[in-house]
Amino acid sequence: METKVMLDTLWVLITAMLVFFMNLGFGCVEAGFQQSKNCVNILSKNFVVFACSTVAFWFVGWGLMFGDGNPFVGLQGLLMVGGADNSPATGDAYQGVYSSINWTGVPLGAKFFFQLVFAGTAATIVSGSVGGRIKYLSFIVFSFLLVGILYPITGHWIWGGGWLAKSGFWDFAGSTVVHSVGGWAALTGAIILGPRFGKFGPKGQINAIPGHNLSLALIGTMVLWLGWFGFNPGSTMAADPRLMSHICLTTNMAACTGILGATLVSWLLLKKPDLGMTMNGCLAGLVAITAPCAFVSISSAAIIGLIAGSIVVPAVIFFDKVHVDDPVGATSVHLVNGAFGTLCVGLFAQDWVSPNTTGNGLFFGGGTALLTAQITGIAAVGAFTLIASAICWFIIKYTIGLRVTLQEEIEGLDIGEHGNLAYPEFMTRKPSYSFYSTSTAEPPAKSSSYSGGSSSSKKREYSEVIS
Amino acid sequence: METKVMLDTLWVLITAMLVFFMNLGFGCVEAGFQQSKNCVNILSKNFVVFACSTVAFWFVGWGLMFGDGNPFVGLQGLLMVGGADNSPATGDAYQGVYSSINWTGVPLGAKFFFQLVFAGTAATIVSGSVGGRIKYLSFIVFSFLLVGILYPITGHWIWGGGWLAKSGFWDFAGSTVVHSVGGWAALTGAIILGPRFGKFGPKGQINAIPGHNLSLALIGTMVLWLGWFGFNPGSTMAADPRLMSHICLTTNMAACTGILGATLVSWLLLKKPDLGMTMNGCLAGLVAITAPCAFVSISSAAIIGLIAGSIVVPAVIFFDKVHVDDPVGATSVHLVNGAFGTLCVGLFAQDWVSPNTTGNGLFFGGGTALLTAQITGIAAVGAFTLIASAICWFIIKYTIGLRVTLQEEIEGLDIGEHGNLAYPEFMTRKPSYSFYSTSTAEPPAKSSSYSGGSSSSKKREYSEVIS
Amino acid sequence: METKVMLDTLWVLITAMLVFFMNLGFGCVEAGFQQSKNCVNILSKNFVVFACSTVAFWFVGWGLMFGDGNPFVGLQGLLMVGGADNSPATGDAYQGVYSSINWTGVPLGAKFFFQLVFAGTAATIVSGSVGGRIKYLSFIVFSFLLVGILYPITGHWIWGGGWLAKSGFWDFAGSTVVHSVGGWAALTGAIILGPRFGKFGPKGQINAIPGHNLSLALIGTMVLWLGWFGFNPGSTMAADPRLMSHICLTTNMAACTGILGATLVSWLLLKKPDLGMTMNGCLAGLVAITAPCAFVSISSAAIIGLIAGSIVVPAVIFFDKVHVDDPVGATSVHLVNGAFGTLCVGLFAQDWVSPNTTGNGLFFGGGTALLTAQITGIAAVGAFTLIASAICWFIIKYTIGLRVTLQEEIEGLDIGEHGNLAYPEFMTRKPSYSFYSTSTAEPPAKSSSYSGGSSSSKKREYSEVIS
Repeated sequence: METKVMLDTLWVLITAMLVFFMNLGFGCVEAGFQQSKNCVNILSKNFVVFACSTVAFWFVGWGLMFGDGNPFVGLQGLLMVGGADNSPATGDAYQGVYSSINWTGVPLGAKFFFQLVFAGTAATIVSGSVGGRIKYLSFIVFSFLLVGILYPITGHWIWGGGWLAKSGFWDFAGSTVVHSVGGWAALTGAIILGPRFGKFGPKGQINAIPGHNLSLALIGTMVLWLGWFGFNPGSTMAADPRLMSHICLTTNMAACTGILGATLVSWLLLKKPDLGMTMNGCLAGLVAITAPCAFVSISSAAIIGLIAGSIVVPAVIFFDKVHVDDPVGATSVHLVNGAFGTLCVGLFAQDWVSPNTTGNGLFFGGGTALLTAQITGIAAVGAFTLIASAICWFIIKYTIGLRVTLQEEIEGLDIGEHGNLAYPEFMTRKPSYSFYSTSTAEPPAKSSSYSGGSSSSKKREYSEVIS
Repeated sequence: METKVMLDTLWVLITAMLVFFMNLGFGCVEAGFQQSKNCVNILSKNFVVFACSTVAFWFVGWGLMFGDGNPFVGLQGLLMVGGADNSPATGDAYQGVYSSINWTGVPLGAKFFFQLVFAGTAATIVSGSVGGRIKYLSFIVFSFLLVGILYPITGHWIWGGGWLAKSGFWDFAGSTVVHSVGGWAALTGAIILGPRFGKFGPKGQINAIPGHNLSLALIGTMVLWLGWFGFNPGSTMAADPRLMSHICLTTNMAACTGILGATLVSWLLLKKPDLGMTMNGCLAGLVAITAPCAFVSISSAAIIGLIAGSIVVPAVIFFDKVHVDDPVGATSVHLVNGAFGTLCVGLFAQDWVSPNTTGNGLFFGGGTALLTAQITGIAAVGAFTLIASAICWFIIKYTIGLRVTLQEEIEGLDIGEHGNLAYPEFMTRKPSYSFYSTSTAEPPAKSSSYSGGSSSSKKREYSEVIS
Repeated sequence: METKVMLDTLWVLITAMLVFFMNLGFGCVEAGFQQSKNCVNILSKNFVVFACSTVAFWFVGWGLMFGDGNPFVGLQGLLMVGGADNSPATGDAYQGVYSSINWTGVPLGAKFFFQLVFAGTAATIVSGSVGGRIKYLSFIVFSFLLVGILYPITGHWIWGGGWLAKSGFWDFAGSTVVHSVGGWAALTGAIILGPRFGKFGPKGQINAIPGHNLSLALIGTMVLWLGWFGFNPGSTMAADPRLMSHICLTTNMAACTGILGATLVSWLLLKKPDLGMTMNGCLAGLVAITAPCAFVSISSAAIIGLIAGSIVVPAVIFFDKVHVDDPVGATSVHLVNGAFGTLCVGLFAQDWVSPNTTGNGLFFGGGTALLTAQITGIAAVGAFTLIASAICWFIIKYTIGLRVTLQEEIEGLDIGEHGNLAYPEFMTRKPSYSFYSTSTAEPPAKSSSYSGGSSSSKKREYSEVIS
C-alpha cells in the first residue's frame, strides 16, 4: 500500500511539473504570435498569471471546487486548503471534506499541486486573446476572479462531484473543465475589449498582424506538447501502467494528426502550409483529445486529431470575419476544440479502454445518452462562463477600466505598461496596415507586414491616422 | 511483480517524454545554425517530421522493426501495432509476435511510445543537412519512407532480433540504430540535393554562411542534452537503479569532455573557441556515448567524449572541403560520431559494467571479436542506408522533384514554401557572399557575414549574380 | 527494500535532470539580461561551465565534500569518486568512506549525479555577475577552482557532516551551500573585475544597460523555476510522498509571492512593473525558500517569498549605488536572498513539517538557538568564500589576467573571444550611454537605450570617448 502511494505520488508530482511548464509554452506561443512592441507585456501577463492563480486557487479556489457542498459549489474546507483530510486514504477509508477527489491515493499536497497547475492553465489561455490592448492591472484582477471563483464553480460541477458528474458527463483531463472555460473567458474578453487598433479597417477590411517571432512560437508549441504528456496521462493520478501508456499514445497521435490536418487544410485554403496554422493544428488536436484521451482507441484519436486540426483553420478565418480580434487564435484552439473534444467522448468512446466509465459512444453502438450528457455539459459550462466572465469584465471595465489609451496601444504596451522594451538593441520596421477585404477569400498570411512597398490608397489613409 | 511493472513503466514513459522533447532541440539547433530567411521552413520541417514519424511508425514501422520475422525484417503484427501481445509479460511468459522486445516488462503501449520517439529522432537528423533548398513536400515524403521502412529494417537487424544482434553486435541506445542511420540519410540527401547557392564559389572557394541565432541554437543544444538523459538511461527500459545511475554519469561525462575537446581543438585550429563548434562537440560526445553508455566506465566515457569532441571540428572542415554542404554539421555529429561510438564498444567495453552482455573490448583484454562485430555492423548498416536512402531521394527527385527554384532559394524558403517570415518586424542585412579559398586553412568562422564592408572582386561578381 | 531503492533512485535521477536543465535557465537569463554583443560569450560561459564543473567535481570535489575526514574537509575517497562504498545500503549497514550521505538509499552514482548538478549551479551563478568584461579562459579556470575546491569545502561543513552540521545549522536544499556561495564568488568577481566600461559615468552617474532579449530571459526564468522543482523536492533524495508534495508547494508558493512582491515594489519604486524585476523577484523567492522549504508551512513560504521579492528591487538599486556592476543582479538574487532564506529557517521553522530536524524557529516559540546557528553559518560560509574566492580571482588576475582589453569590451566579447556573432543578420543600434545621477532616485529602467533622441551634454562627452 505504502509503495503504491509512493508510485502514485511520483507520477502525480512529475506530471504536475510538466503541466506547470506549460506556462512557458503559453508565454512563448502568445508572445511569438504578437508584435514585438507588446512582447514584454504578453510575457509579463503569462508570468504573473500563475502567481495570481496560485494565490487565488490556494486561498479559495480549491475549496470551492473540491470541498464537499451542494451540486453547484463546494462549501467546506474553503480557505487555504485547510479542511479536514486524511489523504492518502482512499474511498471508504477517506475521512475529510474533499471527498470528490478521494479516489486518488496521494497526499493532499500532491492533489492540490496537480489541480493548481490545471487551474493556472485556464487563466493563461485568456491572456492571448486580450493581448495588445488590455491594462496589465485589469488582467491581473480578472485572473484572480477566474481562478478564484469562476473556474472552481464549473469545475465543481464536473470534477468536484457536482451535478454534471452525476448526470453522466465525462471529461477526463479537461477539454471542457480547463480549455473551453479558458476559451469562453478569452472570447468574452476579446469581444468586450474590442479589436486592436488597425486590425479591422474602416470598411471592414481585415488586416493581418503577423507575429514577431515564430521561433519563439515554435518553442512554445513544443513545450505545450511536452506539457500535455503531463496534462493527460497525469490525470490518471495513479501509476496505472496500461492506461498511462495508452493516454500517452492517444495524446501524441491526436497532436500529430492535428498537425497534418492543419497543414493540409492551410495548404488547400491558403495555398501554402502556414506554420502558424500548423502549430495551432497541433494544439487543437491536443485540446480535442484531452477529454476523450482515456476513453478512445488510438485510431479514434487519429481521427479526432485530424478533424481538430482541420477545424482550426476555418475557425481562425471565421473569427476574423465576424471581427473578433483574437491575436493568437485562443478561441479557435481552446474553445472550439475544447467543445469538439468533449463532444467526441459521446461519439468515439469505447468501453474497453476504461471499463466502467463512459461505456460506448454513438459510433460504437452506445446510443445517444452519453452524447446528450456531453452536449448538456458543453452548453451549461459555456452559458455560465460566458455570462459570469462577461460580468467580471464589465465590472473591471467600469471600475479600474479595461483598455489602455490609443496612444499607448499604438506605441506598444511594453513602454506604456512596463517601461521596458523586449529587444531594445534591434532595429524594427514600423508595421504597415494593409487590409484585405473580407469579401475575398484572401487569407491573412498573404498580406504580411513586410510588403511595405505597396501603396494602396486604403493604406495611405490609415498611415495618416497613425502618424 | 505488479509494482515492478509500475516502476518500469514510469521510467520508460518519463524518459520517452524527454526523448520526445529532443524534437524541440533539433528544431532550435537547426534553425539557429541556418539563415533567418529559411527559419520558418526549418522549424516547420522539424515540427511536421514527428507527425510523419508517428503515423509511419505506427502504421507499419513498428511491425517491420519488432515483429517476428526473418533475420532481415519483421513480418508479423505489421499494421498499426496490431499483433498479438500479452505484455507486460516477459521472457518465457511472453506470448505474442513482438518477442524481440519481450525483455522489458512494460505494456505494449509504453514499448511503442519509447521506440516511436527514437524513430522520430532519426528522421529529424536529416532535416538539418538538407536545409535551405529542399522542397517541403519532398522532405515530408522522405520522412515517411525513412521512418516507415528504412529505419525499421536496419533496426530489426539490431534491436529486432535480426542477424546483427545474433552476430554479437552491440548498440545500447542507438549510435548506429538511430544516429548513424539518420546521418547516412542526411549525407545522401545533402549530396543528391547539391549545395546551397552561394556556399561554394565558382573557383571552389568555401563561403561561411553563419547561423542567424546562436541563442536559439544553444537552447536547442541544452534541450538535446536533457533529452539524452532520456535517450540513454531510458534505454534500460527498466528501473535498474545502479545501471540507470551509471548511464546518467557516462552520458553526462561524454557530453562534458566533448565540450572541452571541441573547445580546445577549435581554439587551436580556428584560433578562437567557436561556440558552434563547442555545441557540436557536446552533441558529438553524446552521440558517441550512446552505443557504449551501458558498457563502459566513467573514465572511458570521458575519453570517448574527448575524442568525439575533437573529431567533430576537423570533420566539419572536411565536409566543407569535399564540397558537401551540410548547413548544421549533421553528418559530422551523427554519422561520424555514430560510427565512432559504435566502434568504441569494441574498444572500451568492460564486462563488469553490464555483465553477460558485451564482455571486454580490445583495450580491456577482450580481443578483437567484439570489435569485428561492431565494424561489421557499422559497415552493413551504412551500406544499406546509403543505398536505400539514395534510391528514395532519387525517386522523389524524378517524381515530385527535390529542390526549390533558384529564385525561391535566394529569397528564402520561408516566403516560397510557407508564405511566412520568422521575424517580420526586424530589419536584416542581406547576406554577403565572401569566399575563402580551400587552399588556405582559414576556417568558416573567420569570414562571418558582418564583414559587409569588404569589397573583394570575387564578392562583387557574385553580388551581381544575386541582385 | 529493493523496491524502495528503485523508487528513490527514480526520484533522485529525474529531479537531478531537472536541476541539470537549470544550466539552460541560467544561460538564457544571463544572456537575455545583457547586451547582444556579449551574447555568444555569456552563452559559451554558461555552457562550458557545466563541463568544467563535471570534471572538477568528479576529479576531486565530491571527495572533498562528502569524503570522511575532519570537520573542515573530506579526506578519504578523494579522487574520481573512487572510495569504498556499499550504497544503496544506508545507516548502520553502510560501509564506505562517504558516510555523511549514507542516509539516502540510492546507488553511489545517483548520489554523485544529484550533487554534481548542484555544484554546477553554484558555478553558473558567477557567470552572470562577471559578464561583459571577463576573459573566457579566466572564467574557465575560476570555475574549476570554485567547483573543485571552494564549494566542496563549505559544502563539507554543512552537508558533508562538518562542523556547521554538528552545530545545529540547517540548509535543506542549499540557500547557503549553493546560492550564497555562488553569490559571494559572484560579488568578489564583480568587484575585482570592476564595472563594465560605460556603466558608471565620470561623475558617478549610473547608466542603465538594458538586456537585449527579454523573451530569452523569460524562457530562462521559467526553466529555472521548473528546475527548482528538482532542486528542492529532489533534495529529499527519497520518495517521501508527504514531504515531496509539501516542498513542491512551499517552493511554488514562494516563487509566486516573490513575483507579486517584486511586481508591487517595482511598481511603487520605479512607477511601472518592470519585467526584469518581476523575474528577479521570482528567482529571489525561490532562492530564499531553498533552505527552509522542508521546515516551514505554506503560509510561511508565502511570507518568505513576498519579502524576498520585495528585497530584490532595492538590492539591485543598492549595488548600483555602491558601484558594483552586476549585470544580471546575481548578487541581489543569490547572495542577498540566499542569506535571507537561510535566516528564515531560524525564524519560520515548525517542528511538525519535518519532525526531528530543526525544531521550531523564533516565530513559533523555538527561541534563538536555531537562529544563532543559522547566523553563524551564514557568516562563516560568507567569510570563507569571500576571502577564498578573492584569492582565486587575484591569482588569476596576476597570472593569465582577468579582463579583456577596453577595445574588445567596447566591440563586444563575442568577436574578441569567440569570433562569432549571436545574430549576424540583424541590424542593431549602437547602445547609447545616458547616465542618471545617483543623487536622484531615478531608477535604471527609466533611461533605457531607446531614448536615443536625448542629447544631454554628459552623454555627448561619453559618446565622443566611444566613437
